[in-house]
Amino acid sequence: MNLDKIENPKFIKNLNQDELVDLSKEIRQFIIKNVSKTGGHFSSNLGIVELTIALHYVFDSPKDKMIFDVGHQSYIHKILTGRAKDFSTLRQFNGLSGFQKRYESVHDCWEAGHSSTAISAGTGMAIARDLNNQSGEIICIVGDAAIMSGESFEALNYLGSIDSKVIVILNDNEMSISKNVGGLSNFFSKIRMSARYRHARDNYTEFLGRTKIGNVIYRQTKKIKDHVKEDVIEDNIFGEFGLDYIGPVNGHDFNDLIEAFNMAKSMNHSVVVHVHTIKGKGYTLAEKDHEGRYHGVAPFDYHVGIINSENHMLKSWSAVIASYIQKTMNVDKDIVVITPAMTYGSSLNDVFNEFPERCFDVGIAEEHAMTFAAGLSNAGKKPYITIYSSFLQRAYDQINHDIARMNLPCLIGVDHSGLVGEDGDTHHGVFDIGFLSSLPNIVIMTPCDAYEAKCMVNTVFHHFDKPYILRFPKSLVKDEEVDINQEITLGSWDKIIYSDSNTITIITYDIKVNMVRQMIEDKNLSINLINARFIKPMDNQMLIELYHDKQKLIVYETDLMTGSLGSLIAHYYSKNHMVMDIDYIGLDDHYTPQGDIETLLDYEHININDLYQLIKEKYEERKS
Amino acid sequence: MNLDKIENPKFIKNLNQDELVDLSKEIRQFIIKNVSKTGGHFSSNLGIVELTIALHYVFDSPKDKMIFDVGHQSYIHKILTGRAKDFSTLRQFNGLSGFQKRYESVHDCWEAGHSSTAISAGTGMAIARDLNNQSGEIICIVGDAAIMSGESFEALNYLGSIDSKVIVILNDNEMSISKNVGGLSNFFSKIRMSARYRHARDNYTEFLGRTKIGNVIYRQTKKIKDHVKEDVIEDNIFGEFGLDYIGPVNGHDFNDLIEAFNMAKSMNHSVVVHVHTIKGKGYTLAEKDHEGRYHGVAPFDYHVGIINSENHMLKSWSAVIASYIQKTMNVDKDIVVITPAMTYGSSLNDVFNEFPERCFDVGIAEEHAMTFAAGLSNAGKKPYITIYSSFLQRAYDQINHDIARMNLPCLIGVDHSGLVGEDGDTHHGVFDIGFLSSLPNIVIMTPCDAYEAKCMVNTVFHHFDKPYILRFPKSLVKDEEVDINQEITLGSWDKIIYSDSNTITIITYDIKVNMVRQMIEDKNLSINLINARFIKPMDNQMLIELYHDKQKLIVYETDLMTGSLGSLIAHYYSKNHMVMDIDYIGLDDHYTPQGDIETLLDYEHININDLYQLIKEKYEERKS
Repeated sequence: MNLDKIENPKFIKNLNQDELVDLSKEIRQFIIKNVSKTGGHFSSNLGIVELTIALHYVFDSPKDKMIFDVGHQSYIHKILTGRAKDFSTLRQFNGLSGFQKRYESVHDCWEAGHSSTAISAGTGMAIARDLNNQSGEIICIVGDAAIMSGESFEALNYLGSIDSKVIVILNDNEMSISKNVGGLSNFFSKIRMSARYRHARDNYTEFLGRTKIGNVIYRQTKKIKDHVKEDVIEDNIFGEFGLDYIGPVNGHDFNDLIEAFNMAKSMNHSVVVHVHTIKGKGYTLAEKDHEGRYHGVAPFDYHVGIINSENHMLKSWSAVIASYIQKTMNVDKDIVVITPAMTYGSSLNDVFNEFPERCFDVGIAEEHAMTFAAGLSNAGKKPYITIYSSFLQRAYDQINHDIARMNLPCLIGVDHSGLVGEDGDTHHGVFDIGFLSSLPNIVIMTPCDAYEAKCMVNTVFHHFDKPYILRFPKSLVKDEEVDINQEITLGSWDKIIYSDSNTITIITYDIKVNMVRQMIEDKNLSINLINARFIKPMDNQMLIELYHDKQKLIVYETDLMTGSLGSLIAHYYSKNHMVMDIDYIGLDDHYTPQGDIETLLDYEHININDLYQLIKEKYEERKS
Repeated sequence: MNLDKIENPKFIKNLNQDELVDLSKEIRQFIIKNVSKTGGHFSSNLGIVELTIALHYVFDSPKDKMIFDVGHQSYIHKILTGRAKDFSTLRQFNGLSGFQKRYESVHDCWEAGHSSTAISAGTGMAIARDLNNQSGEIICIVGDAAIMSGESFEALNYLGSIDSKVIVILNDNEMSISKNVGGLSNFFSKIRMSARYRHARDNYTEFLGRTKIGNVIYRQTKKIKDHVKEDVIEDNIFGEFGLDYIGPVNGHDFNDLIEAFNMAKSMNHSVVVHVHTIKGKGYTLAEKDHEGRYHGVAPFDYHVGIINSENHMLKSWSAVIASYIQKTMNVDKDIVVITPAMTYGSSLNDVFNEFPERCFDVGIAEEHAMTFAAGLSNAGKKPYITIYSSFLQRAYDQINHDIARMNLPCLIGVDHSGLVGEDGDTHHGVFDIGFLSSLPNIVIMTPCDAYEAKCMVNTVFHHFDKPYILRFPKSLVKDEEVDINQEITLGSWDKIIYSDSNTITIITYDIKVNMVRQMIEDKNLSINLINARFIKPMDNQMLIELYHDKQKLIVYETDLMTGSLGSLIAHYYSKNHMVMDIDYIGLDDHYTPQGDIETLLDYEHININDLYQLIKEKYEERKS
């Protein structure tokens, strides 16, 4: 069938088993062809084709509400709810989002981008439904890694104690982002292999008989439930949370899925349906991928697969820093590395391979990761913990209460800082300077290139006397050799271009330093440029010098302006009664949508040309 | 014995059972007499007298490290490690902390104040120990409510997957702060009553024989462990996390405790020792307290017990607001109330009693609480969720990613904002303006009195179009009647005293407004006073007016200066190229210690007199 023609999911209910299987094949091909073209979340969507079709077969969206945890595995849901035709615009500016968005469809009742919010939200929506005497199921589809994150545990624990019903679909693909971590993942693998569970499952399946799909099993359910409950439910973690349990279910078998979902629908109590899926199903390279290369992909040729771009000139910031940390670990035996389920995303595979006993993947558990790092530091180790800026938000309390308050030395790599592009508003790392700069004891470093980043790493591990933040973006950078003894003075800014005779000074940081330098050279401008490589502490000496030199300042940022460097500078001068003429470029007080970074910089009027226009304007002002 | 004379816990190992019992009695009397005099955490410490003595009997502090989760139940530990003599200074400025502090003693290896960090920290410290080939046990003592919080779950899950050993003592008093919430608490009560577990316990106790305390049970342990494991361990949640389990143990029986701790010590794998204690044990009123009145106490006469201070003139801010919300709930049926385990602390008992079906205590689960509120809002309800400022930090990501980003209407009460006094650096609510003000869509309100607070509540629930923060302190306030139709214009500041002829204007907010007004009247000053009752949005119109009126400004705050109102004002003027002469009073870039609030304001040079001195100085400047 032509998937583009789908307007809503009602048609699915009229399909027979063969047609369902055909539909799943078409959708899988659609995903492979389209997502390999646009880029996007690949494996996770291939894994839940049958699961999503079966959900729409059994339940009635939008009356029944489907919340996809994180939301990046909602592509099939989008196709089935009339959005296949928009897939060519996936993750592009003004295009289809890679996540559920309420503005896109009535079938999207919730939004996320960070993991483990679905059950909490679903619980709230279920209670609201019951208070309002409304009907409709709330269905949360949660991955096996996300269900082991703190907020999911809190929500499961709470859900088990209330009467309002939520259906939790545990999408267990054994390795959500990369590989699962934690004692409970052993439990999952145990449960998968357990003859006892398998037996119990077979019992109720046999009991139902393999009749026509959508069998009227409702009447039988009470009996089935009691039967299943006795054998299975009481004895696993969900039972102990007070939840019913169905599973494990073969996530690629429509019979199994539909029976299980019908059973869950007929229950009057919250239930976890444990579905076993194969991540990347239908695309062999993705099925075999255990690193997470096919989790989120850039455009690639699906006939060939993802090819390592052997660009020796440019590497990702995270790769450059990870590889330098790895080198340093050979010299400094106390350095340990921590990641919350982002080994691949944070380019840590090689470090983990070389130092398995000093590297720790704690799972999607940012809170635990940060306090765990604090514990290691407290016992004399030198932790390097790296987290994407946007996910770091989960650990704000731990950075404040545990690390900054106790002044525990560590190096926190804040990856994907600034605008990240296609993942959109849930992922832009534009808040961290604002929420970190008010923390006492903390140093915030924003290197402009690989050389500076490595000097900073050296400085941190040589002194190791307080918590250091090393903030770097998602982009590529030219790698450079640096001697391990090369340090950098704490809080010192760098005059990239400076002459007293110039009257305008640009203050910026990170990769923008070289972009501005290039622009100054290209346009042959007589202006100064300062690399504010430390957001905290600032170089007060240099700020005073700029004041004495009567410089007109432009603070150029691509992060949220409130709380960022510009506001720190404004406050500093004001506190010290130094009157300065300053202009600011940065993000205004709103969330930035998705799109490639260049487009977003244009859209927000914060690109290098906007800076150039402002300089010209100020130049004229100064002259007149 | 004279507890003041204790220098370290070694003496305990030489005590026989009778002497241990005597010691526990003396300590209990000591706690009752001293804590009722100074105020502090009362019930929780009375509950773990035997538990703490038994820990020091079996383990060797400081080689074996004891981490008390939250830390407020470490008083017995402090007495046994040489700090009894300091209890008259408990929680006072420069006095003994109410929490573990590394600077106080080598026996305090970790610090907290927020719950659920112990197991994460302990895991880090255990791994460091093993990497360094050191010895010594890591023992985390965690309450039954705190172990159900997200970070604890993450840590337990991780601990179960690694080889490094941590001993987790689950201090199960069935109601940590107030009453336990969540499916798992049913599990705990089930486990307590379960004949099977009881039986298994009795078996191994019998097997050991009730011989002399400190029996050499080590040799037998392998066999015991296997026996216990088979019957008990596999079948509970800790087993599913991959942890061993011993329990439940009678927390007031030295035989039981010492046997269980010895067994835990002899194991070579992480283990949870489930200890059943009675909160408030030994002080009848505290034992019977199910609301949490004796959890943290102000000074009281222990012969009589806590007496309700029937002060009709003054109530706590939380009580005034809770009671007004309760009143409003009668009119607006969509309002629902959410608390993360702080029913008593947030004065919500009456609301919960009147509207049990619209009030939700989700347990110590700030992350879940916030997304749960978002879910309720998303489904059309009007959530009022109230959290202490310092604990709100746990939900930063949820406020940002779930609530502000989706612009979901709700009212977030930020209680205990600003300096909180005796709880000290872990509890001061001085960061929230900094981390909330950069969030798009959010309104931040800081009422100066009950009248204004109620007008703000009316405004919020009438419009209910975005997320609102209502920020209020720990102190008392005079209650006032307000008509439900009385609103307040969003973002409008209030000129309390204003004349063009005055040249100095104080900008402040919350209870400081009336303190400054009083000071102006008392000193008969000719200066202006503005109530900045909205931190966001600010009253830009008024800021422009102040600029045109050439006012010299003093922004008076008692929160952390970085990111707070002063910095927002500085940035605003600078962005708009308006040159203003501004002075700032506020907390500098450091953590503030414990002490009563007046003392802390003096210590930080931010009290009303410091403001007066600054005014005088500026007044002279302006004159000359």
